[in-house]
Amino acid sequence: MDKVRRNERLAAMSKILTDSPNRIYTLSYFCDMFGAAKSTMSEDVDILKDVVSAYALGDMQTVTGAAGGVRYRPIVPMAEAYKFVDSLAQKLAVPQRVLPGGFLYLSDILSQPELVGIMGRILAGQYYKTEPDFVLTMETKGIPVAYETAKALSVPLVIARRSSKVYEGPAVNINYVSGSSGRIETMSLPRRAVTEGQRALIVDDFMKGGGTAKGMVDLMREFAVTVVGMAFVMSTAQPVKKRVDNYKVLMVMDEVADEKADSVTIKPADWLTQE
Amino acid sequence: MDKVRRNERLAAMSKILTDSPNRIYTLSYFCDMFGAAKSTMSEDVDILKDVVSAYALGDMQTVTGAAGGVRYRPIVPMAEAYKFVDSLAQKLAVPQRVLPGGFLYLSDILSQPELVGIMGRILAGQYYKTEPDFVLTMETKGIPVAYETAKALSVPLVIARRSSKVYEGPAVNINYVSGSSGRIETMSLPRRAVTEGQRALIVDDFMKGGGTAKGMVDLMREFAVTVVGMAFVMSTAQPVKKRVDNYKVLMVMDEVADEKADSVTIKPADWLTQE
Repeated sequence: MDKVRRNERLAAMSKILTDSPNRIYTLSYFCDMFGAAKSTMSEDVDILKDVVSAYALGDMQTVTGAAGGVRYRPIVPMAEAYKFVDSLAQKLAVPQRVLPGGFLYLSDILSQPELVGIMGRILAGQYYKTEPDFVLTMETKGIPVAYETAKALSVPLVIARRSSKVYEGPAVNINYVSGSSGRIETMSLPRRAVTEGQRALIVDDFMKGGGTAKGMVDLMREFAVTVVGMAFVMSTAQPVKKRVDNYKVLMVMDEVADEKADSVTIKPADWLTQE
Repeated sequence: MDKVRRNERLAAMSKILTDSPNRIYTLSYFCDMFGAAKSTMSEDVDILKDVVSAYALGDMQTVTGAAGGVRYRPIVPMAEAYKFVDSLAQKLAVPQRVLPGGFLYLSDILSQPELVGIMGRILAGQYYKTEPDFVLTMETKGIPVAYETAKALSVPLVIARRSSKVYEGPAVNINYVSGSSGRIETMSLPRRAVTEGQRALIVDDFMKGGGTAKGMVDLMREFAVTVVGMAFVMSTAQPVKKRVDNYKVLMVMDEVADEKADSVTIKPADWLTQE
C-alpha cells in the first residue's frame, strides 16, 4: 500500500510543481495534501530531484529559510537548447519565408505552443538570477514567447501598446524611432501596469536596429523601473551596432539582400553551445 | 530497485504528459525511454490515471486504435472552475477598476500566467469535442488566454491584426463594425496563416456587442474555415442580443451606468455550476 501511495504522491507532486514553475511550495503544503509526515515528503522530494535530473527535465530545487520549500525550474539543458534552436533555424531558413524588404515570415512559429514553450524556457533560464518582477513586451508578435518566459519565471507579463486605449485608464506614452520603418512611433503603457522600483525583463520576437527595444528601455525609465535584461527570438546580423546593449538572442539572421534570394542564413547565437 | 524505477517513471511520465496537453504518446515511446516492457508501461498508465483522477488534476486518457496511446487533458472540474471564476469576478468587481465609458481594467488579470492558465484550461475543456485545428484571436489583450486555450488543445494560435504588416506577406483584410466605438475597423490575417477547410475556435477577452467576434467569423468565411465555437473571458449583460450566437463566456458584467459607480456586478456565467 505504501508503495502505491509514494507512486501517487510523486506523480501528483510532479504535476503540481511543473504546472507552477519557479513557485515555492512548502513541505507542509504537500504534507497536508497527502497526509504524510515531513520526513516522508523530504524523501519524496529527493526522489523527484533525481528523476528530474536523470531525464534532463529541468531543475528541482530545495530552498532553505523561512520562506523555504521546493520549487521546479524548467531549465533546458544547453545541448538540448542548441539542438532545438539549430533545428528551428534550419526550418526558418527557406526562401518561401523571405518577404519583400528582407523580412522573414515568423508568425506561425511564434504562436505554436510547443515551440514557443521551449523558447520561453530557454530564455527564462538565462534570467532567474536577475530576479525580474515582470516581463515587458511590445505588442503583438512577441506576446506568446514573452508570456512563456514570464510563466517560467512565475512573474506577470506586461504589454506595451501602440496607442493608449480607453479601457486601460491613464497611460504614459513615449515616442521612439522604429528601426524597421525609420519613423517616429508611439508606445503606451497604463500607469497602473507597473510600480516604481520594480525590475523588468524585456522580451520580444525580433530585433533589427534595436529602436523598439530602446523605446521599451526609455518607457521603463519613465516608470523608474530597472531593466535587468533583454531577450529576443531573432536578431539580424546587420547593423552590428544596435541601439541597445546587454541582450541575448536565440538566432541570428544574415541580411537578406534580395527578396528573390534562394536562401537566407540563420544560425543559433554564439552563447548557445553544443556541448 | 523496481520500486524506485516505477517511482521515477511515473514522475517523469507525469511531467512529459502534462507538458504537452492533448498530445498522444504511444506506449512504445515510453517503453523506449525507460527500457520497460509494454505490460509494465500499461500498469504505469493505470496508476497515473488513478492519481490524476484522485487529486482532480485533469483527465488521463488511453486512446485506442492505430494512432493510439495515452494523452493528458488538463480538464478543470466544474466545481473548481466555478470557484475560480467566482473569486476572480469578486476580485474584479471593485470601483477602482471602473474606467470612463463603463470599461473595466482587466489587463493585469489577463497577463498573469497562473490565472490565464486556468482560464485557458476551463475554456479548452468545453471544446475538445469540436476538434478545432487552431484558435483565432484578435490582437491584443486576449492573446495570452487564447494562447493558453490553444496550448491545452494542442493546436496553434492564429492572431488577426488591426492592419496588415510588411513582415507577414500577402493578407486578407476585412472591415467590421466595432461594438465599443461604433466605427468601421479593419482586421487582417496573412494568407498563409490558415488553410481552407480547417476548423477554428475563436477566443477573446471581452465581448460587448459582438462586433469584433462577428468580424472574426466573417474573416474565417473568407478563408473557407469553419468556426466551431466562440469563447470569451467576459461579456456585458447589455446588449442582451449580441451580433454572434453560440458562444461561451466565463463571467458576465452588468452595465456600469456611471463611472463614479460605487461598484460593478460581475457574475460567473450560468453554465458554470457549483456542484
